[in-house]
Amino acid sequence: MEPLKIGLLGWGTVGCGVIKILAENRELIKNRLGVDIVLKRVADIDLERERPVEVGRDVLTTNVDDVLENPEIDIVVELIGGIEPAMSFIKKALEHGKHVVTANKALLAQHGNELFEFARRKERIIAYEASVAGGIPFIKSLREGLAANRITTVFGILNGTANFILTRMKESGLSFHEALKEAQDRGYAEADPTLDIEGIDTAHKLAITSAIAFNTPIAFDKIYVEGISALDPLDIQFGGEFGYSLKLLAIGRATEEGLELRVHPTFIPSDHVLAGVRGAYNAVHIHGDAVGHVMLYGLGAGMMPTGSAVVADIMDLARDILNGVHVRLPYLGSYELKQLPVKPMEKVITTYYFRFSAVDQPGVLSKISGILGKNNISIAAVIQKGRRVGGAVPIVMLTHEALEESVQKALDEIDKLDVVKAKTQIIRIENLSTDRK
Amino acid sequence: MEPLKIGLLGWGTVGCGVIKILAENRELIKNRLGVDIVLKRVADIDLERERPVEVGRDVLTTNVDDVLENPEIDIVVELIGGIEPAMSFIKKALEHGKHVVTANKALLAQHGNELFEFARRKERIIAYEASVAGGIPFIKSLREGLAANRITTVFGILNGTANFILTRMKESGLSFHEALKEAQDRGYAEADPTLDIEGIDTAHKLAITSAIAFNTPIAFDKIYVEGISALDPLDIQFGGEFGYSLKLLAIGRATEEGLELRVHPTFIPSDHVLAGVRGAYNAVHIHGDAVGHVMLYGLGAGMMPTGSAVVADIMDLARDILNGVHVRLPYLGSYELKQLPVKPMEKVITTYYFRFSAVDQPGVLSKISGILGKNNISIAAVIQKGRRVGGAVPIVMLTHEALEESVQKALDEIDKLDVVKAKTQIIRIENLSTDRK
Repeated sequence: MEPLKIGLLGWGTVGCGVIKILAENRELIKNRLGVDIVLKRVADIDLERERPVEVGRDVLTTNVDDVLENPEIDIVVELIGGIEPAMSFIKKALEHGKHVVTANKALLAQHGNELFEFARRKERIIAYEASVAGGIPFIKSLREGLAANRITTVFGILNGTANFILTRMKESGLSFHEALKEAQDRGYAEADPTLDIEGIDTAHKLAITSAIAFNTPIAFDKIYVEGISALDPLDIQFGGEFGYSLKLLAIGRATEEGLELRVHPTFIPSDHVLAGVRGAYNAVHIHGDAVGHVMLYGLGAGMMPTGSAVVADIMDLARDILNGVHVRLPYLGSYELKQLPVKPMEKVITTYYFRFSAVDQPGVLSKISGILGKNNISIAAVIQKGRRVGGAVPIVMLTHEALEESVQKALDEIDKLDVVKAKTQIIRIENLSTDRK
Repeated sequence: MEPLKIGLLGWGTVGCGVIKILAENRELIKNRLGVDIVLKRVADIDLERERPVEVGRDVLTTNVDDVLENPEIDIVVELIGGIEPAMSFIKKALEHGKHVVTANKALLAQHGNELFEFARRKERIIAYEASVAGGIPFIKSLREGLAANRITTVFGILNGTANFILTRMKESGLSFHEALKEAQDRGYAEADPTLDIEGIDTAHKLAITSAIAFNTPIAFDKIYVEGISALDPLDIQFGGEFGYSLKLLAIGRATEEGLELRVHPTFIPSDHVLAGVRGAYNAVHIHGDAVGHVMLYGLGAGMMPTGSAVVADIMDLARDILNGVHVRLPYLGSYELKQLPVKPMEKVITTYYFRFSAVDQPGVLSKISGILGKNNISIAAVIQKGRRVGGAVPIVMLTHEALEESVQKALDEIDKLDVVKAKTQIIRIENLSTDRK
């Protein structure tokens, strides 16, 4: 049978992974597919930089149209990242009748609805397994493997950089900045780590995930996002004493009042499987009405894990091409997507961890708890950490379920008290207590 | 579009799950598939027994041919279990041009090679997601999502009953028989629990899994199998003190000298993600050359989780039928399966936990360690638990890597010593130390 021909846009880290896998596992892939896959062209603006894998001179090009307009190429793999020119290149590839594989979560989170509609009209596929959770076959599991389920919740640890930093802060008591520095030294964090540490990358992935899970268009702009850069190892330690572990969690939840879509540092029970996800690992924990709780775990980034997902997509597309199938699955898993309301953050009800920096003198706790009570926030536990008469000490408090709006109002008032010496630290808790079967 | 028509063989627990999911999530499934799925006939020898879900009288039949020979039915779902008559029914369904979905791991483990060859000649699919790890989309992940990888190891907790029993023994110090009784009372274990507790069900699933992972025909008969019925909670406790957790582990490993395929109680490091798999949950931990370590976790049995996997298979098949595709994937993931040698258990090299019951008197340890040394077994740690001068006390020992053959030889000799009062307990250790990124 005629080999299938691939064109690659972007000879970067993931591109090198794809090239390496296609070369090293060529026979194995051919045996699983029934046909050979040939890397026809690789386009990049810089062909001189040192890379970990070699590509023949006749394959390399600086002219993107050598890929996009190449009549021999069946599948275009976009690994440039960012919005433009990636979006224009993808559209052009689709216009030229090519199927597309992409790992570009920022692009899909922000322009996925438009791109999928564009591809649908062209009767071409955009495959994007590598855009969420790297090497973990998560998109396939959600869109196909769990397709019989009404999904009720999605909890994700979707950024390995952030999880590495939190793991180091917890296990070695490092400050956020020390842990970030270590992540950068090890190559887990970029020079500008904003997307990773401020939760934006996690939100990109939650946007894609929740659209599939809840049969709704991608709604990146509606996600509440809070990063990890303001965290103190002290809170990780205090939370640990209450049996909680801190994770940068992506939360998607279908409720009667609309979807909850949020990304923020979250305490989860330390004996929950998600709490055991250490270092640069990712995991997604899903609840479906039939299957119950499912978790998928693995490396969410890196040359080879992401390459594994890209090549899996290529192989999936190859099967469709060989069978003359145009679009086997609806892009986001359902043919009719229903616009669902997203619950504004103020309306979210959850439980909270507070750390007040309050003067150690009689009557302080009464003032704080008075304000909380007035705002319908009921206290589940409170501990003063240490004594320092007349000076500020941490007072750690856990609440019962409370409304975010009320919490923000109460903390505004509390932080204005004379006896409160610094802004109160607030960390939301998810009491995942579900896998006890 | 014409609805797709399903015929069900076996109105049991999983059958009820499938019926319930198809009814309750009908609209959602139609939206994901683009076509309606209709349950046309349900065949069972007993239609009178009380069930948790209702089926219309016109759908029910005691005549299996109302399903197998029904020209309207596209997909036959076999949920009878066991070898015969399930195998004959599946063949007849294939002969009548139907695709087949089955959850029957015993049948596939023992006759899968023959059945897949039969189906291949008929150009029909046998889908079997539900046969391994229940609701977890594991077969799909392995056969498609990780298809770009050369798989090097598979570690599975594949039997919820056994894992529930071990969890209760660990967390509450129950004896094996007490924990089994509790599992039976809760409906997790059958009246005759042999398949679950003796590791046979786990071996069935390992047989299927390892064939896909290593591109080789199913080789159930070559698997070394040891169950959990001879375990003592004492060893779970002692292992815990060394930082190990005990699991009934399915192990598949590709080595230069052939495949290791074994099922036995295994100590794994307590901080490994697999150690956190509690109760009736299942998990599979895979290493692929590109993706690195991946774990999938969820419920491996039960009406609804297994139903979820069966309906996912039905949906997959429906897409193929709609697209006119006959067999989208090779049955075991590769077109050419290569017969690989399976390493005999005697040739396996691993590390060991021993508990000797030895008389507490001078010179005993020297005798034991002398025999071990003579057999090239080197000791990593040894602790005598308690003192009872002149009586028998447990001596717990961990070894460095040793050859199984030598270990059996040494223990035979040791158990014959006058100073050794009971058969030595031996538990193999897998020092999974891999997810530390």
